[in-house]
Amino acid sequence: MKYFVGIDGGGTKTHCVIANQNKEFLFECFGGPSNFIMIGTQVVSETLLSLLKQCAETLNIGFEDIESVVLGTTGAGRRTDAETLEKDFIEYCKSKNITINHFYVISDALAALEGAFSGKPGSILIAGTGSIMFGKDSQGSIHRVGGFGRFIGDEGSGYSLGKKGLTAVARAFDGRGNETKLALKLQTMYNINSLDDLITLIYKKNFDIASFGKVVIDTANEGDLVSRYILIDEVEELTLHIKSMYAKLQTREMKLVFIGSLLTNWNIYSNALQDKIITEYPNVKVVRPELNPAQGALIVGMEQRGFLN
Amino acid sequence: MKYFVGIDGGGTKTHCVIANQNKEFLFECFGGPSNFIMIGTQVVSETLLSLLKQCAETLNIGFEDIESVVLGTTGAGRRTDAETLEKDFIEYCKSKNITINHFYVISDALAALEGAFSGKPGSILIAGTGSIMFGKDSQGSIHRVGGFGRFIGDEGSGYSLGKKGLTAVARAFDGRGNETKLALKLQTMYNINSLDDLITLIYKKNFDIASFGKVVIDTANEGDLVSRYILIDEVEELTLHIKSMYAKLQTREMKLVFIGSLLTNWNIYSNALQDKIITEYPNVKVVRPELNPAQGALIVGMEQRGFLN
Repeated sequence: MKYFVGIDGGGTKTHCVIANQNKEFLFECFGGPSNFIMIGTQVVSETLLSLLKQCAETLNIGFEDIESVVLGTTGAGRRTDAETLEKDFIEYCKSKNITINHFYVISDALAALEGAFSGKPGSILIAGTGSIMFGKDSQGSIHRVGGFGRFIGDEGSGYSLGKKGLTAVARAFDGRGNETKLALKLQTMYNINSLDDLITLIYKKNFDIASFGKVVIDTANEGDLVSRYILIDEVEELTLHIKSMYAKLQTREMKLVFIGSLLTNWNIYSNALQDKIITEYPNVKVVRPELNPAQGALIVGMEQRGFLN
Repeated sequence: MKYFVGIDGGGTKTHCVIANQNKEFLFECFGGPSNFIMIGTQVVSETLLSLLKQCAETLNIGFEDIESVVLGTTGAGRRTDAETLEKDFIEYCKSKNITINHFYVISDALAALEGAFSGKPGSILIAGTGSIMFGKDSQGSIHRVGGFGRFIGDEGSGYSLGKKGLTAVARAFDGRGNETKLALKLQTMYNINSLDDLITLIYKKNFDIASFGKVVIDTANEGDLVSRYILIDEVEELTLHIKSMYAKLQTREMKLVFIGSLLTNWNIYSNALQDKIITEYPNVKVVRPELNPAQGALIVGMEQRGFLN
């Protein structure tokens, strides 16, 4: 019997799952962060090997029984960075006299996409701090829409919502825009009483603009019109992503999974997006993910090793 | 006879003028940069004293004949920073056994405003890398609109135009937006052939986004519709600044001087703004500045010392 390991490596924790070649998930465990661009490949290698050891011991198997290990993580979008971690981990294992049959590093988004549809075609829309959309067509090709970062992209993300909310406060302050309850929220939450306070908060105190996106959603929910107009614009932006992806996948019906804190929890924003999709895009079906990202990484490994039918 | 010195301190050069108490401008000279936040108060003090010496020697007067020296410069918007430079320069002069009667540091925008209208009421709209508007009412109070920086402000600036142009290219790349000649411009000017190239340019190569604003203006001039729509939106943003300032100044007719590279040179953008003002805001009169910013700083000194009637 062959075994497969899938790992979802995040900024705060790492989730590891193991299954046999019949796709029976047998065990899962968790470790520290694995954003290797930030904390280096050495620390991440230690975490990964410790997780693999837990899997092997629990199932009472050897490392040679594990056909492949696939890690989905942030910072792996660039192939050269992913290869650095692949090489360093294999060498780290060798230094411990352990041989890993196959180790692949993929992006966290790809792991999420492959998990959401168990390797079958579909699409995911991610809206957290940033935003991006990924899709897999019937030929197995991966497509991407958006994800151009905070300066020229991230439409519909927490960063974009937060930035528009703060801009709205600035416009209200000097009479260019309508009054908004967001000003009061800023005042009470961050003790902002003047233009200078606001500018100091944004530019000198490393303010987490994306976190203010949630405040915009809450304030819209309380009836503030300025916040509601921001949400309407941003729902439109996310819809543009969906529309563009639908055209790329060349399918009749496109399955869509929401990912990221702004969309997976019910709120006025995710609800407005769902409403818009239902009424205007009947060929797009919002569904729940079949598997989690760690399981998605595992599926990628089975596919690459020819064990997925 | 008393003499007054006005200095306009920029990031690349410093412009110094001297006049007598009858407001007769007698001499001007130039020195290196005076952005003291960047290069420190010591270097700036050396530059300033060298300019004052040139003035005194040319006019054959002593430092005691100079009633006041006023420097308008960037970074002086915060009073505490301005006071640091005031204190350091006076001490530097003392160390050379030179006494300066009065030395004030003001913001470059205030110097420009006071120069534009020789100390009388009026308004200036600045659009260069960033954007901001200043106005002086009939009571002598200074008002401000905009200037919230690149994250939550700078509407209508080169940065804003450039960002919108680059965002438009990103949207065109993945099918969310219409095609634009801006993509071709990026390709030929910066060798951008893919999404990854674009993202690398923006986030890893410290790309000067504001400089791309001029490209957007040029491309609009060549007939590109996407670029033209960006200009229409940004003219609207600048108009909002003007509208808000007009309400603040509580005057019937508001004089307005354009400042900054985007507006002072003729182009399709400044022309569109002028057209809009003429047709929609007949009480706003776009005029040329009466004096330059160095002269404006000098005027502030005369006013503060009670020599301006």
